[in-house]
Amino acid sequence: MSRGDLLERTVAAIPPPDLDVAAETARLLDAKTKPPGSLGRLEDLACRIAAIRDAVPSGPLDPAIVVAAADHGVATRGVSAYPQEVTAQMLANFASGGAAICVLAREAGARLVVVDTGVIGGATVAGVRDETVDGVRGTEDLMLGPAMTRSTAVGLIERGIALANELADDGVGIVGLGEMGIANTTSASALAAALLPAEPSAVCGLGTGLDHDGLSRKVDAVSRGLAVLDPNADPIDVLSTVGGLEIAFLVGVTLGAAARRVPVLLDGFITSAAALVAARIRPACVGSMIAATRSPEPGHALVLDALGLEPLLDLRLRLGEGTGAALALPLIRGSIAVLTDMATFDAAGVSGPAEAPAPADV
Amino acid sequence: MSRGDLLERTVAAIPPPDLDVAAETARLLDAKTKPPGSLGRLEDLACRIAAIRDAVPSGPLDPAIVVAAADHGVATRGVSAYPQEVTAQMLANFASGGAAICVLAREAGARLVVVDTGVIGGATVAGVRDETVDGVRGTEDLMLGPAMTRSTAVGLIERGIALANELADDGVGIVGLGEMGIANTTSASALAAALLPAEPSAVCGLGTGLDHDGLSRKVDAVSRGLAVLDPNADPIDVLSTVGGLEIAFLVGVTLGAAARRVPVLLDGFITSAAALVAARIRPACVGSMIAATRSPEPGHALVLDALGLEPLLDLRLRLGEGTGAALALPLIRGSIAVLTDMATFDAAGVSGPAEAPAPADV
Repeated sequence: MSRGDLLERTVAAIPPPDLDVAAETARLLDAKTKPPGSLGRLEDLACRIAAIRDAVPSGPLDPAIVVAAADHGVATRGVSAYPQEVTAQMLANFASGGAAICVLAREAGARLVVVDTGVIGGATVAGVRDETVDGVRGTEDLMLGPAMTRSTAVGLIERGIALANELADDGVGIVGLGEMGIANTTSASALAAALLPAEPSAVCGLGTGLDHDGLSRKVDAVSRGLAVLDPNADPIDVLSTVGGLEIAFLVGVTLGAAARRVPVLLDGFITSAAALVAARIRPACVGSMIAATRSPEPGHALVLDALGLEPLLDLRLRLGEGTGAALALPLIRGSIAVLTDMATFDAAGVSGPAEAPAPADV
Repeated sequence: MSRGDLLERTVAAIPPPDLDVAAETARLLDAKTKPPGSLGRLEDLACRIAAIRDAVPSGPLDPAIVVAAADHGVATRGVSAYPQEVTAQMLANFASGGAAICVLAREAGARLVVVDTGVIGGATVAGVRDETVDGVRGTEDLMLGPAMTRSTAVGLIERGIALANELADDGVGIVGLGEMGIANTTSASALAAALLPAEPSAVCGLGTGLDHDGLSRKVDAVSRGLAVLDPNADPIDVLSTVGGLEIAFLVGVTLGAAARRVPVLLDGFITSAAALVAARIRPACVGSMIAATRSPEPGHALVLDALGLEPLLDLRLRLGEGTGAALALPLIRGSIAVLTDMATFDAAGVSGPAEAPAPADV
């Protein structure tokens, strides 16, 4: 099998959500001892999960969070508040369990899969999956030309698909996306600007703590990245030109999970940019997505709108790593527990709505 | 000790939050391997809990959810989509574990305390605490005059205080409020209209599924309730005149928890109306409150604004029972886990922000 075959096969296999199963789930929820729809978005969530899985859930979904890390050539341009070496340091922190996502994944009962998709100096970290492709560690500077070759992008997407398949085979029922990579909000901003499309100044934000000058540098970097982009570029060309290695990998996880009917839980802006690339490759995969959180990055709201997704949480998170996905997992779990564990009106002997209300006259 | 003494003593004992401990918690969070403040409201939450507890949390808080149920005389006025007998039926459903709050409290690892504060026909339900006062089951119709005597209101508040003390003595570290009572959004709307103050039409909403005519009847009921209210009424008079038995009890739980430095997690509109009464009795108790959720009831947003609270979740929940509080508990737990379990920059060998960013010129 040559590079590109798995991607093509996977894209062709992505099904639409099953609306009949969603309707059946809604009927089951209406029989529970609560006014119809009174659990609001929790009920919508149960129906959406049923539609994605093509089955009314009968128990909790085994969750995994995939954190993909990589470096970005554009990091040398002063577009992040942190130096590039932090990517490798954080990869080690993920492996040793001290990072925020380690703590929050543990609390959520999710297995954490830490993936090195091209961290400079990341090769030797124990407890981390090496999914580098073509020996590439760190993208080229997107201000100067393609961040990676199209072949490397496809290779990384296929690594992501393979991981999604592995997780699905292993019984994982929902995959949260996470990422780490100094300067990767610049790459995500460039992807959003190119694919929405939108002005660079409309999508760029303060990331993990830029000042005003840093934000100007970021807008400038994105503008220059877009200037080198071929106007006839397809989504994979856009990804190759201004994307990131970890983003390419997460595009693959998204497509792969969608093809296996595994819900994909988006985290912040960067994972949502990956989801946008996946949606441009195969629009049907949006049906498998659930947005966990809305970040303060201005581009994030635009991307979620374009995907038609309303996030579950709005906690002003701007860390990434999959932390928002981890925090949303108890809501997923709760939505299914309501479906599987609540009593029905019949079983509990509870009356339904009154037939005719009494008159209000005194 | 005569009725009223415990209330007086409790109100006098409510302390302000400790801002020094909040600042110390913020410093500890800034040393963790993440950009300062990047976990957004999760960090604010950890600081707020520390200030309430007067101690930096060293582990998860043992949570309890108190669901108080009672009947309302105004239920005969067609102000609810459901008949009055549903209150007693749901009390039995709480006791047998089939209700939404039973399922969600279990998921959140919270103990559930189900309290009968005046359910008609609720006396014989096993697994339910009988906290009725003066043999009152169901309020009088608030459209016609006082819903209960002031003495009964004070008695119920003191039962709530006693439960809060019992839970605090038993190691409970956070108390979620929940309620059940057919027609109790009418009572909560009347309390909000009287105490904010606000127009009845501005606070009344569709509750658990009223139609347009039902909403008109509710607005009319609230207006008539306000008409019988003494213009010089103190907060306890307002509670006695238009409140509910379960609401009076929850006022007590709120005051009692605040006096013991136990955070109080508000649920939807009815529990927030109870919190508003408590805040009018003793403003300092607001410092102990955390708002779990924003319900679609228009009065809820007004009450939360008056209390200066921003809810953690906005999931269009309109069930009550404490379901929103239960769904917010994992966020509380996550906020503390970040504080107790994350590595520091020093311990993990991760670099801080770059000193001087590189120039953007190519």
